[in-house]
Amino acid sequence: MGKVHSPSVSVAELGERELLRRLERFAPPGQLADDAALLPSTLGSRHGVISTDVLVEGRHFSQTTTPPESVGWRAVMANVSDLAAMGADQVVGVTVGLGCPGSLPWSWLESVYQGMVRALDCHGGCLLGGDCVESPVVTLAMTAIGTVDQGGVIRRRGSRVGDWLVCSGPHGLSSYGLSLLLHGEVNSTPGSLQAQAVAAHCYPQARLDVLPRLRASQPPETPWRVAGTDSSDGLAQALHLLCGEQGLGAHVHRLPLPAAFMGLPDAERHCLWGGEDFELVLALEPCWARTLLEREPGFHHVGVVTASRHLLLKDTRTGKLGPLPPGKPFDHYGPTVSKAGKNAQPEGTAN
Amino acid sequence: MGKVHSPSVSVAELGERELLRRLERFAPPGQLADDAALLPSTLGSRHGVISTDVLVEGRHFSQTTTPPESVGWRAVMANVSDLAAMGADQVVGVTVGLGCPGSLPWSWLESVYQGMVRALDCHGGCLLGGDCVESPVVTLAMTAIGTVDQGGVIRRRGSRVGDWLVCSGPHGLSSYGLSLLLHGEVNSTPGSLQAQAVAAHCYPQARLDVLPRLRASQPPETPWRVAGTDSSDGLAQALHLLCGEQGLGAHVHRLPLPAAFMGLPDAERHCLWGGEDFELVLALEPCWARTLLEREPGFHHVGVVTASRHLLLKDTRTGKLGPLPPGKPFDHYGPTVSKAGKNAQPEGTAN
Repeated sequence: MGKVHSPSVSVAELGERELLRRLERFAPPGQLADDAALLPSTLGSRHGVISTDVLVEGRHFSQTTTPPESVGWRAVMANVSDLAAMGADQVVGVTVGLGCPGSLPWSWLESVYQGMVRALDCHGGCLLGGDCVESPVVTLAMTAIGTVDQGGVIRRRGSRVGDWLVCSGPHGLSSYGLSLLLHGEVNSTPGSLQAQAVAAHCYPQARLDVLPRLRASQPPETPWRVAGTDSSDGLAQALHLLCGEQGLGAHVHRLPLPAAFMGLPDAERHCLWGGEDFELVLALEPCWARTLLEREPGFHHVGVVTASRHLLLKDTRTGKLGPLPPGKPFDHYGPTVSKAGKNAQPEGTAN
Repeated sequence: MGKVHSPSVSVAELGERELLRRLERFAPPGQLADDAALLPSTLGSRHGVISTDVLVEGRHFSQTTTPPESVGWRAVMANVSDLAAMGADQVVGVTVGLGCPGSLPWSWLESVYQGMVRALDCHGGCLLGGDCVESPVVTLAMTAIGTVDQGGVIRRRGSRVGDWLVCSGPHGLSSYGLSLLLHGEVNSTPGSLQAQAVAAHCYPQARLDVLPRLRASQPPETPWRVAGTDSSDGLAQALHLLCGEQGLGAHVHRLPLPAAFMGLPDAERHCLWGGEDFELVLALEPCWARTLLEREPGFHHVGVVTASRHLLLKDTRTGKLGPLPPGKPFDHYGPTVSKAGKNAQPEGTAN
């Protein structure tokens, strides 16, 4: 499947996907297949679970659009979201590898750490350790550790034809919030859609609460089988990971749009391709999914897993299935990504 | 103790030490006091232990002096050394947060990962996970996980007056090797001092074997009390952490010079201030230290912990105690550090 390249091929020529495929062979088989990684040893009936994310200034955040407290908060929540996507229901803490120029104001850094600790406090974790080094560009490499019950692991693999696709909340607010920040068009009236969207972007909540909700809705006699991932790289990408990468497809019956998006241009694009909503997207047996949706009104029934390899969306007007509106997932080594946000789509390319 | 600064003080104005002091208050008390961090939960009688290091190109390694396989090898060994300095005797694995420009050749990166996996293989660990992002500068943020027996933890604090100071091997080869690489003066005759020094710099060995050796030499009826740290930032810095930072001092009777250093100019400077030898430096009760030194001929008796706050070195000719030859530990935000190696001393400043 891999393309043929000269020995001096660059990382950008490979692209992120091929790069990750090549790096996978340095790890045990399947070790890099999920949002986070299970530690081999167990702690009674529990596994340690670990996730690493790197944020680079100008690529994943900008000092002009993101307040420093939000930079720290988002770094923690992105990592905790990866743990939640493996089935973690407990966060131990994070280590932080910080690279920054000597000229960086301490006040900015202090606020970043305040944001981290506030986010960790939400989940009972703490700052465990780290390293500080000089670097020409502000870089925040964070590793989070949590624990997961051996009988409650969520993996990207495991969807079956007929499973219902369910997500833990609406999608698109974070991306809309980022676009407002980028264009400096924020109406900060409390409660307004714009204020909600900016808050969703700056202070997302990782869904560590999904696992107990799944347990509470698990039908008796139904064994644990939950495929899932988080939607950090967008709902469409999450569906691709759960279905397309497993040789399956999906019929999407209804997009999980925020209620307040009614009439918003680009609503579908933000919902499908925006990313950073940090919700969980799950594939479950229909009876389990039905119970979950009855108990949890904030969850959305998105569609169903199919045997075809296509992701198809039902047109709300005609009722017909068609391909997803175009867009593309974030490629860390892609050529045309805006400098201001991890999942910022270059305006115009996604329509 | 903290200096008074304006609110807009920069990280460089603070310096690394004050920066770390300020960051400590974001973590639980004592959490950041050691080379690595214990995870709060236990695994039977074992604790998880975690360490994070960040390497930045041009600051901690250079594509001109360090072969890529050595970059990966050294990153693993530096982290494993931090685990060993907490008493770990088992490595689970590492996560790698990689930042690099798209133009980076894949062949370079592949060799870095090959070096990592080779180093992990030495200690039974594996690549657990990671993240890849675009960054203008190659950055390798690595987090290592290991385990330590609850009854065998090593901490920086705990030295007592009269303890013997023991290190697990000679010091200075790595620093001498780096200076040879920087000046392009390598005589690669196998077995020559120069070849040994370059190998010590490029392919150091973390001392995960020290813990079982300590156990084997522990006198009956003597409870576990081992203060220790690794010498990644130099022997003098390790002595400072074990003694000076605890309000104690040390008399250094004999420097652990490599046998082949006889007559080498700057031998003492490389030994005391060079760093990156990745040996363990320990403070032990004399009876325990004596047994250890009898069993382990590769270990060195360096000196003794004293009540004064001074680090004093015995002159081999006169037998008199005097201050350590001048030098300074690596400051990540210091103004005058060579670009080529983490602990490279600007030539001339250390004499």
